[in-house]
Amino acid sequence: MNVWRINTRTQKLNIEPVPTSWERLGGRGLLARILVDEVEATCEPLGPKNKLVFAPGLLVGHMLSSCDRISVGGKSPLTGGVKESNAGGSTGLQLTHLGIKALILEDKPEKSGLWLVHLSKDAARFEPADDLLGKGVYDTAETLLEKYGKDVAIALIGPGGEMQLASAGIQNIDKDRVPSRINARGGLGAVMGSKGLKAIVIDSSEGEKPPIRDLPAFRTAQKEFNQALMDHPQTHAYHDYGTAAMTHMCNNFGALPTRNFSSGEFKQAEKISGEYMRELILSRGGESNPSHACMRGCMIQCSNVFGDAQGKSIVSPLEYETIGLMGSNLGIDDLDTVARLNYEANDLGLDSIEVGAALGVAADAGLLEFGDGARALALVQEIRDGSPLGRVLGNGATTTGKVLGIERVPAVKGQAMSAYDPRAIKGTGVTYATTPQGADHTAGLTIRAKINHTDPKGQAEVSRKAQVSMAGYDTLGACIFAGFGFAAAPETIRDLLNARYGLEVGADILQVLGEETIQLEREFNRRAGFTSAQDRLPEWMTREALAPTNAVFDVPEEELDHLFDK
Amino acid sequence: MNVWRINTRTQKLNIEPVPTSWERLGGRGLLARILVDEVEATCEPLGPKNKLVFAPGLLVGHMLSSCDRISVGGKSPLTGGVKESNAGGSTGLQLTHLGIKALILEDKPEKSGLWLVHLSKDAARFEPADDLLGKGVYDTAETLLEKYGKDVAIALIGPGGEMQLASAGIQNIDKDRVPSRINARGGLGAVMGSKGLKAIVIDSSEGEKPPIRDLPAFRTAQKEFNQALMDHPQTHAYHDYGTAAMTHMCNNFGALPTRNFSSGEFKQAEKISGEYMRELILSRGGESNPSHACMRGCMIQCSNVFGDAQGKSIVSPLEYETIGLMGSNLGIDDLDTVARLNYEANDLGLDSIEVGAALGVAADAGLLEFGDGARALALVQEIRDGSPLGRVLGNGATTTGKVLGIERVPAVKGQAMSAYDPRAIKGTGVTYATTPQGADHTAGLTIRAKINHTDPKGQAEVSRKAQVSMAGYDTLGACIFAGFGFAAAPETIRDLLNARYGLEVGADILQVLGEETIQLEREFNRRAGFTSAQDRLPEWMTREALAPTNAVFDVPEEELDHLFDK
Repeated sequence: MNVWRINTRTQKLNIEPVPTSWERLGGRGLLARILVDEVEATCEPLGPKNKLVFAPGLLVGHMLSSCDRISVGGKSPLTGGVKESNAGGSTGLQLTHLGIKALILEDKPEKSGLWLVHLSKDAARFEPADDLLGKGVYDTAETLLEKYGKDVAIALIGPGGEMQLASAGIQNIDKDRVPSRINARGGLGAVMGSKGLKAIVIDSSEGEKPPIRDLPAFRTAQKEFNQALMDHPQTHAYHDYGTAAMTHMCNNFGALPTRNFSSGEFKQAEKISGEYMRELILSRGGESNPSHACMRGCMIQCSNVFGDAQGKSIVSPLEYETIGLMGSNLGIDDLDTVARLNYEANDLGLDSIEVGAALGVAADAGLLEFGDGARALALVQEIRDGSPLGRVLGNGATTTGKVLGIERVPAVKGQAMSAYDPRAIKGTGVTYATTPQGADHTAGLTIRAKINHTDPKGQAEVSRKAQVSMAGYDTLGACIFAGFGFAAAPETIRDLLNARYGLEVGADILQVLGEETIQLEREFNRRAGFTSAQDRLPEWMTREALAPTNAVFDVPEEELDHLFDK
Repeated sequence: MNVWRINTRTQKLNIEPVPTSWERLGGRGLLARILVDEVEATCEPLGPKNKLVFAPGLLVGHMLSSCDRISVGGKSPLTGGVKESNAGGSTGLQLTHLGIKALILEDKPEKSGLWLVHLSKDAARFEPADDLLGKGVYDTAETLLEKYGKDVAIALIGPGGEMQLASAGIQNIDKDRVPSRINARGGLGAVMGSKGLKAIVIDSSEGEKPPIRDLPAFRTAQKEFNQALMDHPQTHAYHDYGTAAMTHMCNNFGALPTRNFSSGEFKQAEKISGEYMRELILSRGGESNPSHACMRGCMIQCSNVFGDAQGKSIVSPLEYETIGLMGSNLGIDDLDTVARLNYEANDLGLDSIEVGAALGVAADAGLLEFGDGARALALVQEIRDGSPLGRVLGNGATTTGKVLGIERVPAVKGQAMSAYDPRAIKGTGVTYATTPQGADHTAGLTIRAKINHTDPKGQAEVSRKAQVSMAGYDTLGACIFAGFGFAAAPETIRDLLNARYGLEVGADILQVLGEETIQLEREFNRRAGFTSAQDRLPEWMTREALAPTNAVFDVPEEELDHLFDK
């Protein structure tokens, strides 16, 4: 495996050996290492000093179930801090097949203009992409697949990334060539846009699978992992209902974001639940599919294809975070509308969490009646049009709140919260507050912990453990749901890594990698000017009680400040 | 003297003795002390935990020339850090005549609604002010003067403060009852708006002048100070040309902000110069007046009344910072247009520096052609209308740049630079970078220092000295131009303070007060989450050379980081 370093100004590729200190890392951990080693933390995120890095996780390349995720990172234009965002699809797999441990995109072009970079065995070729200017990701992917063949992987941005909006992500095509696997969070699509790149096309046809030092041992561990995963009840729940299984659970905890986080309970929750959605999808037939895999080899298949009344796909997948932020958070109880909002956000290449949160804030400012789906769609159209209001919304919830004069913004470090109100799930509140990434459930969701979620006691420790594990999984390239299997058979992580790389890591490797990753990320943020003052939920959440639990966020600041003390 | 503490939720006044540690401070120094002592530095600036504090400087109350300034402070919604902004007019004088050393406005109303608070001897009375909703400061002041008598002082906000825009300031009426003496910087008008206050009316008719311990000594020192001030050549230059004397000087240094800080030289500088303006004002007659005092007793009279062709006042005063930011910075060479822009910003109660800088950024984004005054006026009208674009602009240059995707934003800590490009006047660049206040020339202008302004060497020390002196003057309540007198006769500061308060301070008291003030401000910012990472000019200014000097900002970061080491 090598490091591929591409200068987007000179359009030159350098293939370099992997520095020793990077070897044992991958995915999120490697991104943090690279950012600390190479990126001036105070740099302008959309300027030439920032870098955009693609790093497949340590286990990527073998079609292990749910373990082929691609981590993308850089300094975030949304938070001003460290950023890693991972996604499924085929980008990770194909990068490893080209022998790429990390793809580092540097500098930025002197002139405006749009490019794509085509990666193939030992080569990177820039091609003008001005014809794709302003095109949505669905159109763009179709054009590129036609031109470069249906077997390439593609990572690309939509108009949102071109406009360098801070809610813009990077889309990746899934195994069915649908470009909706998004490195969503933190504005990495804007970083890609700032470097003049519309798309990265990855042709690994002349590549090869990454080597495995001890194939029999690898296969044994894989089998064990698969078994543990299949034995886990959640695997089946996610297979049937997808992430939307969470709607009822969250609503029952009083933590379902409703009307801009002004309530934790949505009266019409049933109509946006996973159970309801499954029945709807099954009844509609056609392209609709309640159980769909985003990556080859995935046994969970938590994804879906949400079709319209005629069975024609509206969007794939329709996930819980989008349902929470663009459904109940906007007072919208109609899945078709949520699916259409999701499609538009996808096509623009935007994070549906951030856009949903921004729309919720806009509703509080009177720009939208809660429940008015048509108006919500019209506001997303403003983003596509690049109007001043559209640019406000496209820059996320914090900017929207600042501009419109709304204090009730659900965000930390400038990044919007996911669909778990942290007053009712306080461990996740600790995660939102303290993760170096800005508010994000994927940094350490605690909703399944056996704890009274509204009691402030013990939440810090629950969050810390979850954060460390997740940083570990993100370093492996493992989906959060692969964790069901790994948690049941933790030794398989050790065995897979040792077999794959000829290492001799111990059974605590997940925690070792997770701890190291978080410390590196904190170091980057420290250099960028972050202190414990930014490890806080918004003040209004400590003051404004959440119906129906009447909870405020009251985990002691002292506990937040010492969470990651060594 | 007492501390008046008013709760804006309960509408109750408490008159309290001055804590010992506050006694020897006033103005900016006292604000810093109060903020450190009483305001949680991480609080939401527009929430109930922030306080808005009015503190006259130590020498206020005696009509000493240019020494009756009122400092207003709180946590800034623009920078997120400590904020002090001072202004002339009659507010400071009348507060001291009521025996108020500090007026502390706390909490915020639970319901929306607009109020005014009327201060008189030992009393504060709230009155509904909903009839003033949306009214500009000129109308509002007229209404209030009619109602409360022509001898009151008034501090008030315009629609900008009501909208809680981060560029909103607090206007004070001058000796001619014109409400254009603005505590402009950092969004303190938004803080006042967040507390539901349209105006503070101060009736000191039953008050009395603050006591002087040793009147003969005070008069002797005053006479000496007056003489030193009158002997200084700059006093006469400012009397004749006002602050606009700076246009030519700055242009000659290649530091005149031109077309959003893309050049330091404005071809048409002559047409916006002090010399040209004086001739124009003299030729127009009527209400026009080139030499006007903002406070009673001022011998400099740097202010002016800028009249139209018929001699009718357009705005008073028209100052250099506005000319720089709304003139050359927008490519506008017509003083009538600049005066009209200034009037609109004033009437909205907005900082003309911040709005001018925001318009410059908007021009870079293509929303305005440089030089198009009509369009600039239309954009200011958008602010009045409260449109999304208007709210973007009204929230200042940094928000405007973020929303519109423009990197070339001339700001530090979220606050726009004044009309001195820091690449060509590097000492002022050091000030912009390191003052706890965010970019601001009044924190330590170095343009008169005997130094090569484009050489990075020695600038840190020049800035440090200027910053300490200015923090000292701001603690005294002395105008920057009073400094001409004090610098020539520094012992008069000692003598005035000792005579006024019965103290025994030494001749270095200006520096002692200045150092202490800056250290307190840094402590507040540290608690608010600031580190040396925020003590930086924007990255593009280290990269983009400024015509005609071709300078970039290159004072070593090491020097910025240790400027205020004790």
